[in-house]
Amino acid sequence: MGGAAEAVAEAPKSLLRPGDAGLKELFEAQIRGGQDSIVSAVEAIDGQKFHTDSWTREGGGGGITRVLQDGNVFEKAGVNVSVVYGNMPASAYRVAVGKDVGGGADGDTVPFFAAGVSSVMHPRNPMAPTMHFNYRYFETEPWNGLPAAWWFGGGTDITPSYVFDEDMRHFHGAYKEVCDKHDPAFYPKFKQNCDEYFVIKHRKETRGLGGIFFEDLNDRDPEALRQFSQDCLGTVVPSYLPLVEKHKDDEFTEKEKEWQQMRRGRYVEFNIMYDRGTTFGLQTGGRIESILMSLPLTARWEYCAEPAAGTRAARLLECTRTPQTWV
Amino acid sequence: MGGAAEAVAEAPKSLLRPGDAGLKELFEAQIRGGQDSIVSAVEAIDGQKFHTDSWTREGGGGGITRVLQDGNVFEKAGVNVSVVYGNMPASAYRVAVGKDVGGGADGDTVPFFAAGVSSVMHPRNPMAPTMHFNYRYFETEPWNGLPAAWWFGGGTDITPSYVFDEDMRHFHGAYKEVCDKHDPAFYPKFKQNCDEYFVIKHRKETRGLGGIFFEDLNDRDPEALRQFSQDCLGTVVPSYLPLVEKHKDDEFTEKEKEWQQMRRGRYVEFNIMYDRGTTFGLQTGGRIESILMSLPLTARWEYCAEPAAGTRAARLLECTRTPQTWV
Repeated sequence: MGGAAEAVAEAPKSLLRPGDAGLKELFEAQIRGGQDSIVSAVEAIDGQKFHTDSWTREGGGGGITRVLQDGNVFEKAGVNVSVVYGNMPASAYRVAVGKDVGGGADGDTVPFFAAGVSSVMHPRNPMAPTMHFNYRYFETEPWNGLPAAWWFGGGTDITPSYVFDEDMRHFHGAYKEVCDKHDPAFYPKFKQNCDEYFVIKHRKETRGLGGIFFEDLNDRDPEALRQFSQDCLGTVVPSYLPLVEKHKDDEFTEKEKEWQQMRRGRYVEFNIMYDRGTTFGLQTGGRIESILMSLPLTARWEYCAEPAAGTRAARLLECTRTPQTWV
Repeated sequence: MGGAAEAVAEAPKSLLRPGDAGLKELFEAQIRGGQDSIVSAVEAIDGQKFHTDSWTREGGGGGITRVLQDGNVFEKAGVNVSVVYGNMPASAYRVAVGKDVGGGADGDTVPFFAAGVSSVMHPRNPMAPTMHFNYRYFETEPWNGLPAAWWFGGGTDITPSYVFDEDMRHFHGAYKEVCDKHDPAFYPKFKQNCDEYFVIKHRKETRGLGGIFFEDLNDRDPEALRQFSQDCLGTVVPSYLPLVEKHKDDEFTEKEKEWQQMRRGRYVEFNIMYDRGTTFGLQTGGRIESILMSLPLTARWEYCAEPAAGTRAARLLECTRTPQTWV
């Protein structure tokens, strides 16, 4: 979103502009509260503490990046909050939000506000899944003949190296429950969005085994959608951490660790080739270390490493090639 | 270049079409001879053998991929030959060759022929550099009002994790010598091309410490340029393998191995985000395992791992941020 990022000494009390109130204030409280509570829950399992960096963005806003690296349970876990605003090129904007907003002559810029929390957690044990989530709120001011606009986006998704059906039922079940509480149409639609978005196109595989993913959500009262976003964020800990708790001490072989490392390689491929947020951030001068926090500590690429038919690794691959219905 | 790739049992005697003669025949002999002699030289150092896969391309042509993985000296080394032809979308063509050839309405296709040899070698020892080369010959038939065209492209470049000045003088010196033999203007120009091409844009670092890189080379007798391409290919072994021989048994610490792994991570970032050949291949249905053979066996991403000033790691980074003159 343009502008260099600079580290600052302490997390500021608020990342908002003076005068930002209402929904913006509530949403900032929600994502910072979520960051704190998720970090605490992960620290309780891992036994190690997160490192915290605060940074400001030259063009407006800033963020708080919290990372636990080389932990006891987690290879790498990061939770990033950012609140950014200002003007972005119309072309960059289209990439960022995945929709055309008109205009777009060179030099056209769109006045915007964006706040979000995002996270990736890579556990050490190959039986414990990786998890990613992102919840964000966007606003644009009247621009190019269009009225002001706002919307919510986000989702949580899971990426195991081995399939435990009951784990997938637990994770998807938790998100189905929170979706159903708000609208029974949400889960089927957002589950399908997720399967369609997280595709490693050149491999014809999904990155993981899905979850929920929504964009451009603005079809009802904003406060109701903020509540939905908050409930989704609140579901991260109960949907995911029990799976890590369950598998963190599982026995595994060197081959199983290598398979996990190859799946980490696939994770890298998706994130830096296809993920809209990552490529947009990198191409427009975001804070690189906060953006690439999502990459695993270690990854592996073996030549022609297709697993033998009937193995547990092959089952995982099948599920990435044909998305499953878990609940 | 469209079309699925299929494995075949044995390397064919020729990858050319019946009737392909002259320069095409000479160039195929050159790249296959180069593949054989480089593979033999690497096997002699490593003590392990390359695995060979031949494959055919649905739209026309095929290739021979040779890979040594998890060797004694090399983590991963691959040498890939391909000869492909047929018709490619004008839009894909522009990406592939990095120049506009006119036309380009949806559905427009360009009749082309492309032959090349490419390679990446990642040694285990962090004191031994990674090396990449690619030498290719392109032809297009008359199309869209343009006459038939041909050109050579390629280069060899080096990516150490630690800088040994005398090694860089040896490597660059060998390529300066072969360039000077053909044209004293070549080395300065192709060295600069190389520094400009292998840039990890979001990091403002080069992938490695350069070498030579040329494209669209067709400004003199094709036979003279084929000889230049052949001499460059013949310089791979004497410019590079002595550096591996020299450092393969160097002592190193765990921290130095981790630094190498982080440089491997940078290698992955460049290859799958910016390398024209890789992204073109992946987006247009090339043989994925042959394209991604260039990725290291293992890589690492640490959060905020900027090395301390004055260290050997910091020296390497400085050289990637400000390209040096080595000879």
